[in-house]
Amino acid sequence: MKRSHRVAAICQILTESPGEVFPLKYFCDMFGAAKSSISEDIAAAREAVSVTELGYIETLPGASGGARYIPDISLEKARKIQHDICRLLQEEGRILGGGFLYTSDIMYNPATVQGMARIFAKKFRESGADYVATIETKGIPVALMTAQFLNLPVIVIRRDTKISEGATVSINYSTGSSERLQRMSISKRAAAPGSKVLIIDDFMRGGGSIKGIEEILYEMDLKVVGKGIAIVDINPQTKKVNDYFPIIHLEAVDEVTRAVRAVPNIDIF
Amino acid sequence: MKRSHRVAAICQILTESPGEVFPLKYFCDMFGAAKSSISEDIAAAREAVSVTELGYIETLPGASGGARYIPDISLEKARKIQHDICRLLQEEGRILGGGFLYTSDIMYNPATVQGMARIFAKKFRESGADYVATIETKGIPVALMTAQFLNLPVIVIRRDTKISEGATVSINYSTGSSERLQRMSISKRAAAPGSKVLIIDDFMRGGGSIKGIEEILYEMDLKVVGKGIAIVDINPQTKKVNDYFPIIHLEAVDEVTRAVRAVPNIDIF
Repeated sequence: MKRSHRVAAICQILTESPGEVFPLKYFCDMFGAAKSSISEDIAAAREAVSVTELGYIETLPGASGGARYIPDISLEKARKIQHDICRLLQEEGRILGGGFLYTSDIMYNPATVQGMARIFAKKFRESGADYVATIETKGIPVALMTAQFLNLPVIVIRRDTKISEGATVSINYSTGSSERLQRMSISKRAAAPGSKVLIIDDFMRGGGSIKGIEEILYEMDLKVVGKGIAIVDINPQTKKVNDYFPIIHLEAVDEVTRAVRAVPNIDIF
Repeated sequence: MKRSHRVAAICQILTESPGEVFPLKYFCDMFGAAKSSISEDIAAAREAVSVTELGYIETLPGASGGARYIPDISLEKARKIQHDICRLLQEEGRILGGGFLYTSDIMYNPATVQGMARIFAKKFRESGADYVATIETKGIPVALMTAQFLNLPVIVIRRDTKISEGATVSINYSTGSSERLQRMSISKRAAAPGSKVLIIDDFMRGGGSIKGIEEILYEMDLKVVGKGIAIVDINPQTKKVNDYFPIIHLEAVDEVTRAVRAVPNIDIF
């Protein structure tokens, strides 16, 4: 196999499994080549991918060493993703009763969600998280893809208690302007006590759900190391939580004029 | 930029966005190269990725032409994924009350889910589906990743009616050995009438939920073109639906001996 083909195939293999370490031996066996050749191939692959600004290749020295692909995003591409989401949110006909916005088509579109997840993954790469946690339902796709980019498992907190979760920890929390009482639960098997958790969700208004997630994770002896929320309504201005990272700010949803104003978080990286 | 680097970068870019067509011009602009050179680069990239059995590059001729990456999987790798899942399911301590199995750690692990999605994507690539549909909650990750591989949006059917879904269509359906009545709903905005839908879910026992999904999609004037279920319990032997495609058969869950027997579907491709 030609060297240039090996380099290209290495790019494909690493890109397919972000964050996963591939030992040199993996490629030696696959291509029937010596370690020294594969090392040079990986160096060439690293140089090649550096121009695309989609991600970079890290090499890890030593016996357990190898190479892995770290997805990345440039500020320019992140801005484009933010503007695309704002444009979608401002499309006509999204306003539902009660000032809610229809966002399911955005939050369930793999390509759009991948863009958001790429921003979260870059922001929280150094957070030390062992898990990505979210609450059902609409935050699951963006949490899953963020977790994929960070090579971490996901914890899904349920809004009710399911037999299929085994023993659970539950809390009550209040949400919405009416402070309606709700319940969330998490399987006791979901994570090892003492682990670090990154919270990712699709939407926040007052922050009641996110505060509930923090509380239930605390009950599980888990430490929150970051909070990423795709869309944050700027109202109410006083939130129940601090230190959250929004991708988009929702500035206004006017039920009378049917106008929506969404703006990018300008302070992302 | 060296040709070999361009070829490798093209592999990375295409692999990052499965199914998305990149026009030649995209690469010409990025690398400042002529169309003829980029055509040769793509041909080299196609040859390079063909050895990994992870996916292939398709070239599309004409004015709207370009190249795209189609994820794939060999029978050998699919078998390994199936056996890995069986091994996980047969781990000690998964049996919950009522003969249920704890599977959240499997269904929320991006790497495992990606393996299942790769099998579904290969199986249903020619189905003509416009959407991938699932019902909340545990099937969402595998449905999302299957959709990503097929470059399709996802429809998530809810178990209750949410204000954030706008106008909905709802049905009642019965599930479980006790034929308990449940409700599911779908946003009227979720899909254009007449569209084709691939159903993907994590688990099936009697098939009540899947039958419910078929019914609600029918009410929305949507056509089911395939049904992929990650794990299918062989009991009860009479299911409420036909023509489903399982990755794993669950043959026995013994609450007394605490033994689980899970086997691969031998007839996958």
